[in-house]
Amino acid sequence: MTYRQDFILDTDPGLDDAVAILFALGASERLNLLALTTVAGNVPLSLTTRNARVICDWAERYDVPVFAGCDRPLVRPLVTAEEVHGKTGLDGLEIHDPQTPQQGGHAVDFIIDTLRAAKPASVTLGPLGPLTNIALALVKAPDISTAIKEIVLMGGTYFEAGNITPAAEFNIYVDPHAAAIVLGSGVPITMMPLDVTHKACITGKRIDKLRSLPNRAGKRVADILTSYARFDTQKFGLEDGPLHDPCVIAYLLEPGLFGGRRVNVQVETMSPLTLGATVVDWWGTTTGPANVNWITEIDAEGFFALLTRTLAPLP
Amino acid sequence: MTYRQDFILDTDPGLDDAVAILFALGASERLNLLALTTVAGNVPLSLTTRNARVICDWAERYDVPVFAGCDRPLVRPLVTAEEVHGKTGLDGLEIHDPQTPQQGGHAVDFIIDTLRAAKPASVTLGPLGPLTNIALALVKAPDISTAIKEIVLMGGTYFEAGNITPAAEFNIYVDPHAAAIVLGSGVPITMMPLDVTHKACITGKRIDKLRSLPNRAGKRVADILTSYARFDTQKFGLEDGPLHDPCVIAYLLEPGLFGGRRVNVQVETMSPLTLGATVVDWWGTTTGPANVNWITEIDAEGFFALLTRTLAPLP
Amino acid sequence: MTYRQDFILDTDPGLDDAVAILFALGASERLNLLALTTVAGNVPLSLTTRNARVICDWAERYDVPVFAGCDRPLVRPLVTAEEVHGKTGLDGLEIHDPQTPQQGGHAVDFIIDTLRAAKPASVTLGPLGPLTNIALALVKAPDISTAIKEIVLMGGTYFEAGNITPAAEFNIYVDPHAAAIVLGSGVPITMMPLDVTHKACITGKRIDKLRSLPNRAGKRVADILTSYARFDTQKFGLEDGPLHDPCVIAYLLEPGLFGGRRVNVQVETMSPLTLGATVVDWWGTTTGPANVNWITEIDAEGFFALLTRTLAPLP
Amino acid sequence: MTYRQDFILDTDPGLDDAVAILFALGASERLNLLALTTVAGNVPLSLTTRNARVICDWAERYDVPVFAGCDRPLVRPLVTAEEVHGKTGLDGLEIHDPQTPQQGGHAVDFIIDTLRAAKPASVTLGPLGPLTNIALALVKAPDISTAIKEIVLMGGTYFEAGNITPAAEFNIYVDPHAAAIVLGSGVPITMMPLDVTHKACITGKRIDKLRSLPNRAGKRVADILTSYARFDTQKFGLEDGPLHDPCVIAYLLEPGLFGGRRVNVQVETMSPLTLGATVVDWWGTTTGPANVNWITEIDAEGFFALLTRTLAPLP
Repeated sequence: MTYRQDFILDTDPGLDDAVAILFALGASERLNLLALTTVAGNVPLSLTTRNARVICDWAERYDVPVFAGCDRPLVRPLVTAEEVHGKTGLDGLEIHDPQTPQQGGHAVDFIIDTLRAAKPASVTLGPLGPLTNIALALVKAPDISTAIKEIVLMGGTYFEAGNITPAAEFNIYVDPHAAAIVLGSGVPITMMPLDVTHKACITGKRIDKLRSLPNRAGKRVADILTSYARFDTQKFGLEDGPLHDPCVIAYLLEPGLFGGRRVNVQVETMSPLTLGATVVDWWGTTTGPANVNWITEIDAEGFFALLTRTLAPLP
Repeated sequence: MTYRQDFILDTDPGLDDAVAILFALGASERLNLLALTTVAGNVPLSLTTRNARVICDWAERYDVPVFAGCDRPLVRPLVTAEEVHGKTGLDGLEIHDPQTPQQGGHAVDFIIDTLRAAKPASVTLGPLGPLTNIALALVKAPDISTAIKEIVLMGGTYFEAGNITPAAEFNIYVDPHAAAIVLGSGVPITMMPLDVTHKACITGKRIDKLRSLPNRAGKRVADILTSYARFDTQKFGLEDGPLHDPCVIAYLLEPGLFGGRRVNVQVETMSPLTLGATVVDWWGTTTGPANVNWITEIDAEGFFALLTRTLAPLP
Repeated sequence: MTYRQDFILDTDPGLDDAVAILFALGASERLNLLALTTVAGNVPLSLTTRNARVICDWAERYDVPVFAGCDRPLVRPLVTAEEVHGKTGLDGLEIHDPQTPQQGGHAVDFIIDTLRAAKPASVTLGPLGPLTNIALALVKAPDISTAIKEIVLMGGTYFEAGNITPAAEFNIYVDPHAAAIVLGSGVPITMMPLDVTHKACITGKRIDKLRSLPNRAGKRVADILTSYARFDTQKFGLEDGPLHDPCVIAYLLEPGLFGGRRVNVQVETMSPLTLGATVVDWWGTTTGPANVNWITEIDAEGFFALLTRTLAPLP
Repeated sequence: MTYRQDFILDTDPGLDDAVAILFALGASERLNLLALTTVAGNVPLSLTTRNARVICDWAERYDVPVFAGCDRPLVRPLVTAEEVHGKTGLDGLEIHDPQTPQQGGHAVDFIIDTLRAAKPASVTLGPLGPLTNIALALVKAPDISTAIKEIVLMGGTYFEAGNITPAAEFNIYVDPHAAAIVLGSGVPITMMPLDVTHKACITGKRIDKLRSLPNRAGKRVADILTSYARFDTQKFGLEDGPLHDPCVIAYLLEPGLFGGRRVNVQVETMSPLTLGATVVDWWGTTTGPANVNWITEIDAEGFFALLTRTLAPLP
């Protein structure tokens, strides 16, 4: 029997979050998804929470606990991204009244309680949105850090242009203080920045393979990627749009698909011009400790093959 | 029968916190102290929590619930003030193993649960240290703000020099991000900055009156003030040291002792030089909303008379 | 024969600048005014330069060299103060086409050439506006610093509220980078901040004494002060308006009228909220060197008596 | 007869500056080098000035006017780069007592006087170091901007890692305020950032071609490049080191070798972490005006061929 990694997915669905959640649910033999915890980000919290439940419904996984978390960043006002994800957060997809229930209690408390009950270095956190929930949990209960095996998150950019401002990637920009808390926590961290996700290109051929899966999930993900890629190709003049959040799941399943470097990463919280910039000491010119495994390389072909293969068991 | 104000005292004792706590306990006919919640500040959390319990013992109020809160500021590393309060936080005082128990659960949860169970605008919060607990509660549960009648806090400076840096007062400096969250919350706030506490002078005559109270509390407070004033008179060359935290309690009992102005106050979180500065729009030169009742005047004689009178019923 | 201090007045007239210039011209037995150098500040450069010449005309001192300097701050866009000084910069005063000529050449070059030709520590600079000219001279020709006896400037605030933003005084705010350059230059500096100028109150009695001088200058200064005080009394609700720039001249003539402290002063250049704040280490809590003689006390009665007496010889 | 572009080269030699200067002197049929103006940067001003004269000697161009400029950045303390350029600034090269004279007068005044005497949009400035001289000239004499045809400068980075801090390129970092002044001046600007210079690789083959030139200049440049490339290959683990400053000269001679985009570029002056970062609005996500032609592409083969060919006429 395979080892199943205990895993909490913290998310603000969001189109690419939806793909990542289905990806994780498809991988349930390998990933023991303890819960989806939601946060305000791509769209407000009430929508990200509803969307998380809708996505569980799609996978007929009504049993996945869904906890709502923070509805605002720590210090700054909320910025959302409806221009990418649509007003519903799942642009172009039919939204139904979800059957998967929302759990009582706050996502931050679920994270804290779960980690306190867990063995040392046993639970992986996978944040796909602003890091507000994770930061709040670490501030409220610093003792939980020992139970965290790793935080594998989507966010940041260094060698690529920012996507919300010229200096910053959306997830980090929305709550730079939360990011600073998480990066300063001492917990092992792997980051999937735009540097790598821009190499995970959504080509027509890759969409076709997903669409040809003999289940609804494949078609749905194909639809999502078609719609999702449109924004980036139009805005950034790219041939093919990048795929962000599913990189986190792929890394948990096959880290060998990725390449990076252990480096010091700091978050800009002080300047309006560069707010949310992730400053990566790629060449070791500072004395900062290597707090992040910063991913820059991906086997994109292998990544999409893994995604397609993993979605196959879903309904 | 008198109206008793439901009241949570959030504190990091600390010598002047100790006086404020005894002050509040002496006023129990008027103030319904729901709990002491503790935070890291003057000394680390384990000491502020123990000290809170010790002080309850002094007043033979073993029934006061004491909840430990955050052991660190939100974003920045903890700065403490042992040079003022001594290594124990209660410099010069005998510390015993306290009988008043520490409650299970986190101070932030106590605050949230209490406010959620309370009537609208019914509970007053009195933070005497860094605002970490209050900020965390507001971020985790924004709905609690409607139950808060007022936050009356000690912190900040505008017309007086800073006391931890030239630009900042200690409580705000230690957690400027928490202060920014609280000041931006929309909750009614009264601030007792150095501008007013520096006018609450600890004179020998005022200490004498406290010492001549026929109970232990009077002598203890007299001892504390003697020790406490020494730091400020030596460091700042003042004739008499200022008394900070008890101003919060006095304001709750007799607001007419104080004078201030409703103004916009913002907290500097972006510059190393001025970090934690409280920028007060005293002359209305900006368009910022009046989010704070900023206190600058005090009837110091009336204040010390009230303190002395209120401590009298204590053992 | 009395010693005459070589002196360059750098100014942006401006109503209180006008009083200061007349004050300096009245003191010509003591102050050898080498030139008026002008800068953009209260109003744009073309107006401050014209006004400087007009004021020399008033004193029939057509011989005073007037050099135009910088028409903009170093890094930031120019902010002016027409709401205080009127559109002309000399609100309420009749402006004629001046007879005193404008010199060819740039004020910064005049300052550099003059200082290079001077003996060590022999020339005093008296900046009454933004420090752009002085800073530019120091950057372009760092060797001039040895010829400067002292820079006595009007600017900054610490114990008083800012007058252009809640955190900053106008002169420093307009060019904070220039101020940072000057304060970091190692040259002896005396600052006349709002902390002291707010104690130099323009009372009706003091205006009356000026008006009763048997010359035009007294009446003109009385008119200026009447008009000038109006702004501050209306905006800040003070009984009597403060008098800023003439404090610089008074200090040169009778330093004993003033009291201050040698302290470290730094200028905020990094934060939008506190830009231009002068952070004064009044209590010695930092390790910064004492780069400024920060003035906080004034014998206001003696100051106005000196002003009145000094204006008497003028036409 | 060919059109010769009037041209001022502002420089802090520096090894790659030396190549750029020889490059410019070799192109004298096309570039009318009005002067070399020097600035503190790679090494202190006294050395950059001496080195500029030494390099003119190498080319037997004793007639080139060399003016010394600013010996420090505007606001910040000077940072130098001896670890790259050696203690002399021309590491590994024999330094003699130069015959080319240093002109009297300040580089900033030469720039101002020259531009004031020039026709509109007729003179090109080529800054290869910190922008202190150019900024000072623009602040002191804003009218000169109309005479500037273009500023083609080496500096900045966006898609590449910084080379002095993780966020900043050396020239901009050393004087970020000067860079902000220049970028805000409204003058046409072309920037050669690390984004392009990292594509101008110093390969062994390219060095060989330079060395095989039948003159001293070719051998000297080959020596310089051999030494210069060593630093970058060792520090950054690159196969071949990048060549920075000569890109400016190549662009003036053959702009078709380069590709870029007209975009808004702003300089970070407010945060310690990201000081000197050049924030490029590559995707047009802000409303900032397109103030810079930001170069990212180069025909490296053509570039080195041009360099080699142009050096041929030199002794």
